[in-house]
Amino acid sequence: MAPMNLARIARKQLKLTSPARQSVRSRSTRAASTCPLPIPPDRPHFPCVEAHAARESRILSSSLPHHRRKPTSESDPSSSSSSSNSGPEVPYSRPSPTSYKTYHHTKPMELTYALPLPEFDLAYETWGTLSPNKDNVILLHTGLSASSHAASSDLNPTEGWWEKFIGPGKALDTTQFFIICTNVLGGCYGSTGPSSIDPTNGQPYATCFPVLSVFDMVRSQFCLLDHLGIDKLYASVGSSMGAMQSLAAGWLFPERVGKIVSISGTARSSPSAIAMRFAQRSVLMADPNWNNGFYYEGLPPHTGMKLARQIATITYRSGPEWDQRFGRKVRPVNQVERPLSILSDPEPTTPSGRKLPRIPALCPDFLIETYLDYQGEQFCLKYDANSLIYISKAMDLFDMTASSISSLNLTPPVPRTSPPPLPPSLASHPSSPSHLAYHSQISHSKHHPPPANPPPHLPDLAEGLMPLSNTPVLILGVQSDILFPVEQQREVADALRMAGNGMVSYYELGGVWGHDTFLLDVQNVGGAIRGFLS
Amino acid sequence: MAPMNLARIARKQLKLTSPARQSVRSRSTRAASTCPLPIPPDRPHFPCVEAHAARESRILSSSLPHHRRKPTSESDPSSSSSSSNSGPEVPYSRPSPTSYKTYHHTKPMELTYALPLPEFDLAYETWGTLSPNKDNVILLHTGLSASSHAASSDLNPTEGWWEKFIGPGKALDTTQFFIICTNVLGGCYGSTGPSSIDPTNGQPYATCFPVLSVFDMVRSQFCLLDHLGIDKLYASVGSSMGAMQSLAAGWLFPERVGKIVSISGTARSSPSAIAMRFAQRSVLMADPNWNNGFYYEGLPPHTGMKLARQIATITYRSGPEWDQRFGRKVRPVNQVERPLSILSDPEPTTPSGRKLPRIPALCPDFLIETYLDYQGEQFCLKYDANSLIYISKAMDLFDMTASSISSLNLTPPVPRTSPPPLPPSLASHPSSPSHLAYHSQISHSKHHPPPANPPPHLPDLAEGLMPLSNTPVLILGVQSDILFPVEQQREVADALRMAGNGMVSYYELGGVWGHDTFLLDVQNVGGAIRGFLS
Repeated sequence: MAPMNLARIARKQLKLTSPARQSVRSRSTRAASTCPLPIPPDRPHFPCVEAHAARESRILSSSLPHHRRKPTSESDPSSSSSSSNSGPEVPYSRPSPTSYKTYHHTKPMELTYALPLPEFDLAYETWGTLSPNKDNVILLHTGLSASSHAASSDLNPTEGWWEKFIGPGKALDTTQFFIICTNVLGGCYGSTGPSSIDPTNGQPYATCFPVLSVFDMVRSQFCLLDHLGIDKLYASVGSSMGAMQSLAAGWLFPERVGKIVSISGTARSSPSAIAMRFAQRSVLMADPNWNNGFYYEGLPPHTGMKLARQIATITYRSGPEWDQRFGRKVRPVNQVERPLSILSDPEPTTPSGRKLPRIPALCPDFLIETYLDYQGEQFCLKYDANSLIYISKAMDLFDMTASSISSLNLTPPVPRTSPPPLPPSLASHPSSPSHLAYHSQISHSKHHPPPANPPPHLPDLAEGLMPLSNTPVLILGVQSDILFPVEQQREVADALRMAGNGMVSYYELGGVWGHDTFLLDVQNVGGAIRGFLS
Repeated sequence: MAPMNLARIARKQLKLTSPARQSVRSRSTRAASTCPLPIPPDRPHFPCVEAHAARESRILSSSLPHHRRKPTSESDPSSSSSSSNSGPEVPYSRPSPTSYKTYHHTKPMELTYALPLPEFDLAYETWGTLSPNKDNVILLHTGLSASSHAASSDLNPTEGWWEKFIGPGKALDTTQFFIICTNVLGGCYGSTGPSSIDPTNGQPYATCFPVLSVFDMVRSQFCLLDHLGIDKLYASVGSSMGAMQSLAAGWLFPERVGKIVSISGTARSSPSAIAMRFAQRSVLMADPNWNNGFYYEGLPPHTGMKLARQIATITYRSGPEWDQRFGRKVRPVNQVERPLSILSDPEPTTPSGRKLPRIPALCPDFLIETYLDYQGEQFCLKYDANSLIYISKAMDLFDMTASSISSLNLTPPVPRTSPPPLPPSLASHPSSPSHLAYHSQISHSKHHPPPANPPPHLPDLAEGLMPLSNTPVLILGVQSDILFPVEQQREVADALRMAGNGMVSYYELGGVWGHDTFLLDVQNVGGAIRGFLS
């Protein structure tokens, strides 16, 4: 057959009457469809593909309740869907305002890459009791997609994302510290982000929202601290993107941050991590429902979100864990895709008499596949797609090398000269033996040997981290982490030491949990934090 | 605002008049569109998203010439677009039949997971001269997406995918060996695959094509060898999926395979590699144009293919290479996405007088992003989407553990008892000193110490590999490979040794090229092959 001409192809396209084709295409074209049309009996059908159309039907038939209902947990009883009272309703965001506090910042705030944001909200929660001197505050920073709900509280009794690390006697000890956690600027769980209403036109910002930096996120958090009358943090603590914020807080406000905890983070996003996040943004932005970010009045890009989360999930754990957990096991019940006549035969055999094995499916079949599919499915209606794009981009942009920071035209702060803070239990006994022991302990890394194979950018990074040279820093990395590999943890520790910081504590953990170790390894991660903070 | 009801949402969906929305949606709905409609001036626009619609327009306006023209190389002068003369034209496949030979197998061939394939074609090319005894044959197996065109030849003078490794004095020395390379069964470059015509109904198989195994691919190649009168291979050589085929060849036909070369492959696909290939299949199958695999009369899922290739590319190189090659460099010319008034100001400043830095783009901006974008763009119209799905699935299914093989109901072959073949140069002098030296050399690994941390499935794998216990095997791995990590290379070598194979040569390479090292490192990869084959 000769190549088809334009008119013929167009005709073919427009004439397409295959129900299979219609059912797949329906998700972007036939908005009122309630279920996919049947596939012809002689053709395979793919439950994993039909799931996209079926999900869209469910969203439509339930008037988008799914992603309005639950911000952080499937069983959060405090959520409601009626928190917004002006402008079009924003999907995903706005858990019940009774489940967290909101700080309204009514003045313009400078941004790294854009003109000032005219105003913003910051959702936050707290645990523990603020001391009279307001000197026991820990600012806990979140990773990419977490809400302010790090742990259960009176306002919201559902389990939080760091439940096992926050409480009496835990890593962040609520009998000793007052812990604050915010939903980051750019997020969708109560803080201002792309799904929020732009006060200048009453519409959601969508992609008119300015590109953010991690520095912007931190600056907004310090506006909240100002509002709360908290001059100085006892510590800034974070994992993953939270670790970036933790380091940025110490850089922006060296006089206001007592100690820094950076777990599985980095001070300079690597091209390989950028690549993994780029792949996520790409599949999301290619979803026709994304619509250049202007989807808030219609269907969200739920398929793109699911695919993006599948990719992200691959980077959160490790191959060894999957081998232990799933190996090469397949789903127990075979997913029947293929309308071959052999499927009606319970024990099909070939003409030579060989019994055919279980027929593999092209849709998720191995348990590792059904796991990734499930993770994507769980996430795709719980988080705002534009928030994912903006916040993952902020992570990519994060680079504390001196050359990068100077290109931002920020004014580098002057390193503080005051000594690091004492833990509350020691603060009143400055010359006690335990005080001296404490100082000798945090200085243990002063004579750390220089790194064996330093990356070429290490001196540049050390120069950029100079404002942190007098702040005690805990760097903790995980050897099975493929997203923030242990080489990057060593890099941060080495750069800080090169910058003259003699108070760097550095730990590497083994285990197979990869990047997610910070959510799972209470004993080792929690232990290191407790030791460092005490 | 209260949640919207179904009718209201449907109305909103159907009423959408935003040109931006239309332009993005057009790729699946308005087939005859020639270019995207303009974006409103107050909204950002995203060149990377518009590229999908623009590509579709180009495909339509040029009557799909792009993916009909060139199978293996942009500059292949031997290709033509009129090679198919019956049934609907198949996109992508069928380079000019004059650029390769085709073996037509006219009898049914047994398949691992399905009823026999009634007939098939296998495209192949050869280099060097077949010896009178037909004892100098090397069967070269390809990776996932390669054609039979491994090197230039009289039939097709364009550069092949392993050009630097094939020729006089090269790793596969054409003055000594007769080299055969096929396009694998399931492929789209001349061999039968999902894009081929099903003889039972005259239509492309599409996803009615049976699920394939790597064993099926190899069995089809041995049908070709039978046809050529070649009883025994001097060696079976392959990298990546080619290494799987190379091992499978030795397993299926131990008496017909003299030596085995396995580079950056595996004998048991790991869940992490399955995860990466699953992510690729998922984005592809979610493209509405995929249409359950029945896209051959319409538009191919070019966007899904581009996204899939971006993900694949991440697994082909390594983080250290990207850091050396791209670092955090951004594209020199800023991609203007945002219609903010500041963009008309060449040096925008904030109210506080700070000069704003370069505004980052949400579309590809870092060089690592533009690199991945380019790789996806280059590939998306050069390969058949269904071939990618079927062949990547065959890779996932590959598992030579005894328990897996026994579940396939294949008859395990009996290990051969004859000695390994001699290189042609030594074959006539069985008692010469060089012959003895050769035997001592290939046996160097007989007393290899047992592995330190063997994976639990190692004994099962060793049992499965028993048919290879008398075949000399070269295993070569690369320490920076994240897709087939070096642990898997050690695993194959350890399992072979555990199976009693005393002729295992094992090498690990350093360097930063990751999985693609087998395409790039002529000196080390080529040197190891030459040494092993000589």
